[in-house]
Amino acid sequence: METVTAAPPVRIGIIGVGRIGRMHAELLSRQVAGASVAAVQDARADSAREVGRALDVPVAASAAELLAAGDVDAVAICSSTDTHAGLIVEAARAGKAIFCEKPVSLDLGEVDLALAAVREAGASFQVGFNRRFDPGHQSVREAVARGEIGEVHLVRISSRDPAPPPLAYVKTSGGIFLDMTIHDFDMARYVTGSEVVDVHARGAVRIDPGFAEAGDVDTAVVTLEHANGCLTAIDNSRQAVYGYDQRVEAFGSLGMATSENPPAHTGVVRTASGASASVLPYFFLERYLPSYVREWEAFVAAVEAGETPPTTAADARAPLVIGLAAWRSLRERRSVRVDEVEAA
Amino acid sequence: METVTAAPPVRIGIIGVGRIGRMHAELLSRQVAGASVAAVQDARADSAREVGRALDVPVAASAAELLAAGDVDAVAICSSTDTHAGLIVEAARAGKAIFCEKPVSLDLGEVDLALAAVREAGASFQVGFNRRFDPGHQSVREAVARGEIGEVHLVRISSRDPAPPPLAYVKTSGGIFLDMTIHDFDMARYVTGSEVVDVHARGAVRIDPGFAEAGDVDTAVVTLEHANGCLTAIDNSRQAVYGYDQRVEAFGSLGMATSENPPAHTGVVRTASGASASVLPYFFLERYLPSYVREWEAFVAAVEAGETPPTTAADARAPLVIGLAAWRSLRERRSVRVDEVEAA
Amino acid sequence: METVTAAPPVRIGIIGVGRIGRMHAELLSRQVAGASVAAVQDARADSAREVGRALDVPVAASAAELLAAGDVDAVAICSSTDTHAGLIVEAARAGKAIFCEKPVSLDLGEVDLALAAVREAGASFQVGFNRRFDPGHQSVREAVARGEIGEVHLVRISSRDPAPPPLAYVKTSGGIFLDMTIHDFDMARYVTGSEVVDVHARGAVRIDPGFAEAGDVDTAVVTLEHANGCLTAIDNSRQAVYGYDQRVEAFGSLGMATSENPPAHTGVVRTASGASASVLPYFFLERYLPSYVREWEAFVAAVEAGETPPTTAADARAPLVIGLAAWRSLRERRSVRVDEVEAA
Amino acid sequence: METVTAAPPVRIGIIGVGRIGRMHAELLSRQVAGASVAAVQDARADSAREVGRALDVPVAASAAELLAAGDVDAVAICSSTDTHAGLIVEAARAGKAIFCEKPVSLDLGEVDLALAAVREAGASFQVGFNRRFDPGHQSVREAVARGEIGEVHLVRISSRDPAPPPLAYVKTSGGIFLDMTIHDFDMARYVTGSEVVDVHARGAVRIDPGFAEAGDVDTAVVTLEHANGCLTAIDNSRQAVYGYDQRVEAFGSLGMATSENPPAHTGVVRTASGASASVLPYFFLERYLPSYVREWEAFVAAVEAGETPPTTAADARAPLVIGLAAWRSLRERRSVRVDEVEAA
Repeated sequence: METVTAAPPVRIGIIGVGRIGRMHAELLSRQVAGASVAAVQDARADSAREVGRALDVPVAASAAELLAAGDVDAVAICSSTDTHAGLIVEAARAGKAIFCEKPVSLDLGEVDLALAAVREAGASFQVGFNRRFDPGHQSVREAVARGEIGEVHLVRISSRDPAPPPLAYVKTSGGIFLDMTIHDFDMARYVTGSEVVDVHARGAVRIDPGFAEAGDVDTAVVTLEHANGCLTAIDNSRQAVYGYDQRVEAFGSLGMATSENPPAHTGVVRTASGASASVLPYFFLERYLPSYVREWEAFVAAVEAGETPPTTAADARAPLVIGLAAWRSLRERRSVRVDEVEAA
Repeated sequence: METVTAAPPVRIGIIGVGRIGRMHAELLSRQVAGASVAAVQDARADSAREVGRALDVPVAASAAELLAAGDVDAVAICSSTDTHAGLIVEAARAGKAIFCEKPVSLDLGEVDLALAAVREAGASFQVGFNRRFDPGHQSVREAVARGEIGEVHLVRISSRDPAPPPLAYVKTSGGIFLDMTIHDFDMARYVTGSEVVDVHARGAVRIDPGFAEAGDVDTAVVTLEHANGCLTAIDNSRQAVYGYDQRVEAFGSLGMATSENPPAHTGVVRTASGASASVLPYFFLERYLPSYVREWEAFVAAVEAGETPPTTAADARAPLVIGLAAWRSLRERRSVRVDEVEAA
Repeated sequence: METVTAAPPVRIGIIGVGRIGRMHAELLSRQVAGASVAAVQDARADSAREVGRALDVPVAASAAELLAAGDVDAVAICSSTDTHAGLIVEAARAGKAIFCEKPVSLDLGEVDLALAAVREAGASFQVGFNRRFDPGHQSVREAVARGEIGEVHLVRISSRDPAPPPLAYVKTSGGIFLDMTIHDFDMARYVTGSEVVDVHARGAVRIDPGFAEAGDVDTAVVTLEHANGCLTAIDNSRQAVYGYDQRVEAFGSLGMATSENPPAHTGVVRTASGASASVLPYFFLERYLPSYVREWEAFVAAVEAGETPPTTAADARAPLVIGLAAWRSLRERRSVRVDEVEAA
Repeated sequence: METVTAAPPVRIGIIGVGRIGRMHAELLSRQVAGASVAAVQDARADSAREVGRALDVPVAASAAELLAAGDVDAVAICSSTDTHAGLIVEAARAGKAIFCEKPVSLDLGEVDLALAAVREAGASFQVGFNRRFDPGHQSVREAVARGEIGEVHLVRISSRDPAPPPLAYVKTSGGIFLDMTIHDFDMARYVTGSEVVDVHARGAVRIDPGFAEAGDVDTAVVTLEHANGCLTAIDNSRQAVYGYDQRVEAFGSLGMATSENPPAHTGVVRTASGASASVLPYFFLERYLPSYVREWEAFVAAVEAGETPPTTAADARAPLVIGLAAWRSLRERRSVRVDEVEAA
């Protein structure tokens, strides 16, 4: 038999192959046209070896080794949050295009240092707010952008995880507003195209007292006021037992646009007792798979075209500020203006 | 031909036959089994005559005449809000069963006087929170009451009118939180079975600057905290151009229950451009007709059985207090505890 | 108090107040603007007296008395099928506008005599194919008529009753194709605007062996070919335990239009086991109430305007011919052309 | 960097990499756990080289070379229909597990020879009726198998392609009943678990007169009668401009189970003109991607376990017989019993 080879794709090195990093590695090696996995690396060498074996790709001994490799065009930073900012700086200096999982950092000063390094290097940079690439959520943004629903008056986001994360994770994650609601803060900015100026957050511990011990809440309602006058209402829970509940809705002067939950499948059974249908997709990978693939396609297309990826450095920073304001609001039981956090 | 007569129903006199009063008169005369319209009355004699003619029922010259009539078992108080409390007192003293449109009054002292008169007379009293009788919303309450969704953590209510009321109405109605959101405050109490203890309201004028001139807002987001720890998020608009948008959702430890909008009809057209379906029912009568009929059936059944109607005096009062707290929250840009209003 | 009277409506006498006649009487007396019930009559005097008492309307001793009354503008013929044709002839001669429940007769010769009498008298005549007035089904017809789905290629109708009729009824009703599928034959003509030229029917007894004893089937699939080349597929069951299942769909060169089942209410509960929703409306009155009201509104409007009602004599006759062809097809296990029945 | 290798999967050689074969090759190399593509081959060497290059897999010069290779555990036969039977025989003799796209052949004698070879070799054999693995359709089968809907009385299948195939394809494909409806014949057997005994087919040319010239139809309605008395109604079109319309429904004594179309995404826009939503997924790969992946997972699991794959030789044969009966029914304008075709 004759062996032939494919044209060279964008070669991506993956730093951190825990749950999310491994998913990115698998998508990039199997489902993203124009991309390949150049290497994987993880602080836990065993994890890196396992993923390397499964995907048949090289394993780098350290992030530095991976960043130094000539056959790595871009890096996906999927390691723990506290390492993100430093790795961004190093990757920018190494001349790599950079994809970084959210959040860049829990510390605004660190974020600013990292983004400054990106700016100085002129690096392509994209933050992992994958939900912007969900076809349903995107259709809401597009309806707004095309003027189909007029001027936006209200946004409503329900965002509920199927199961809580380990409490150990919560202790370092920045808590619900920085590890979970941050996606919704991003979505509110994305859908409206308007910055957030004021935050009111209310939270409760209803699922597990461990959240209280960790200084966190597991249930929350947040009200945002945008620069253009729009109001956004977000509700969150760490545990929706019926599946991953993710809905976004924009309401305006000419109508509304909404992104509903897809069912796990479209079967329905009707009996004398009523109708029954499937649960929602349970896991983030099931629910958001198309968004992850499309997120990578956008990154790869931008890198190949030498253009700025669609989710920018500003998009990486703003939701963090909103999250910090939400924590302050919750603790001080009052509305907090975003510029209070900026000024701090 | 031979003429036969029907068995005597509960005979109801209607005080005030503006839009809502006329609707009640028509329902009672045509669609509510066991009820009849004994007489109608309105401060505008022309209105009363027109409705009397259309329904072939007697017209009373005054509320006093109607309340004095021996063939009137119960009254429906549908006149302007400022007359409600006084009429409740008079009707209670006249020994009538009382149905009163919401709100009883914008003044808490007046409410308390009226409800005291009801209590003293031992009168049957029901306030017009018809949405409790909507089959969809009721199914949400029942899912909670049966424990199907476990302990309730979050309630989410979207309540958007198809078109704004006249500004003249707004100036005397108590504004959005007392003429519109008051239904949602009632719904939050109804669905959770738990009192509200804390209110945060944020509002905006996005539809018509006239609302600002009237001291009102036309767009609002309200967060409620309940005694049982549940959080409720409400969003309101005075103008949903796509129809009357009314959704209620309860989320809990074992699942969620939701009441979606019905379409005006079930037809769907699919072409190469996508799928299109009907608007929502536009008018409150289309959307809530079954709730109004069922509301009256519950009242009539309670009157006939000599029992307390299902929506009580406490249910008439509590949403008003929440609404007053919402106004204070909006004006003072802070969360307001309900007992602050009580203490005032 | 002062008594005033309403303007004169179209006064309708109802012949036959069994289940369907009583429903018409109640709708006409309560929900159809511009109509009133002038009198009711039934072969069973007790039934007539009960309905007369409930609605407070006179009871006629015989159909002849009712037809002779000067204060009766129109008649609703709701008695047993075998009396329809004769009553149509008498009503036409008495100068009344005529509404007749389907079918006019099971005998084509009788139908032709009755329709000839209508024609000679120049009477307003409407047959009770109420489903044409269902807003969902009507939206399918309108999508076709407006050309939104292009040329119609396929029609698909599922029509399943919630519970079988008494076997005694089946024995005189003409069987499934003349008492039940006849609505679907009408719908196929209505939606496509094209006559049926060829029929293939297949049936089975799956619910109750009594249907076989009565010479009937309880489950059927019928294929129709229309003059314009469109094919229609109908499926029927006498017993859909999950409610009254009524769906109509037209498919064409530019798209499709469909009328789905409405739920009994819009509540949905989601748990870890999946989603559950309400049954379908169970009874024909719940499902088709708006269609009955709108059917009467169309009749009343036509009578008042002196115009031909929208569902004509031809519409009364054609589905019967198709039904007779369906029975022949089932029995002879072959396709039957409609003109074979006409020629017989 | 260190290179590690994965555990050996089931190595599959793909014969024929036209549209469907290439899709299988891509799925097997990227998304099916436990499988790899060992080699590809195509009568058109260019096609094989292109796919080999894209997937980085060897290209075999001939089917014989591929079947002789020691590192090929199983073959996927995706070449033109006329080559299927011969390749099955060769693959069975070469000791390979066999996956064959439908249909095995248009000639019943050839099918029987091929299946005999499979039987003699004791080969694992699966035919490509992927729709059995669609989660929605499968949920219908499971509801029937678990008895949730009781005894099955009716099955209703709408199966409409988004766009017609090239007429050149139609001329050799066996026409609509053998290249398209054959999936629905399989689905009817799968859902009911009962063989088909009688077929009535009606067809029309509504889309393109070229179908008539090719001896085919582009629009069809087929009625099946099953051994257990159930009736199945199928409607087909070669061109649903609104997307790939694929619905399966089983109706029984205790309820119904249905598999609805998924939308391309879940976004909905509501304006004063009504609601609009996305088209259906347009292409078979979008619509049925999960079914293809799951089909392969079932095959791989069966091969690894040494068990009979779930879609058997009998499943490969029966739909062809039904399709031949459908053609006879259409041509002779009568119902045709399946055993007439068997006897021929």
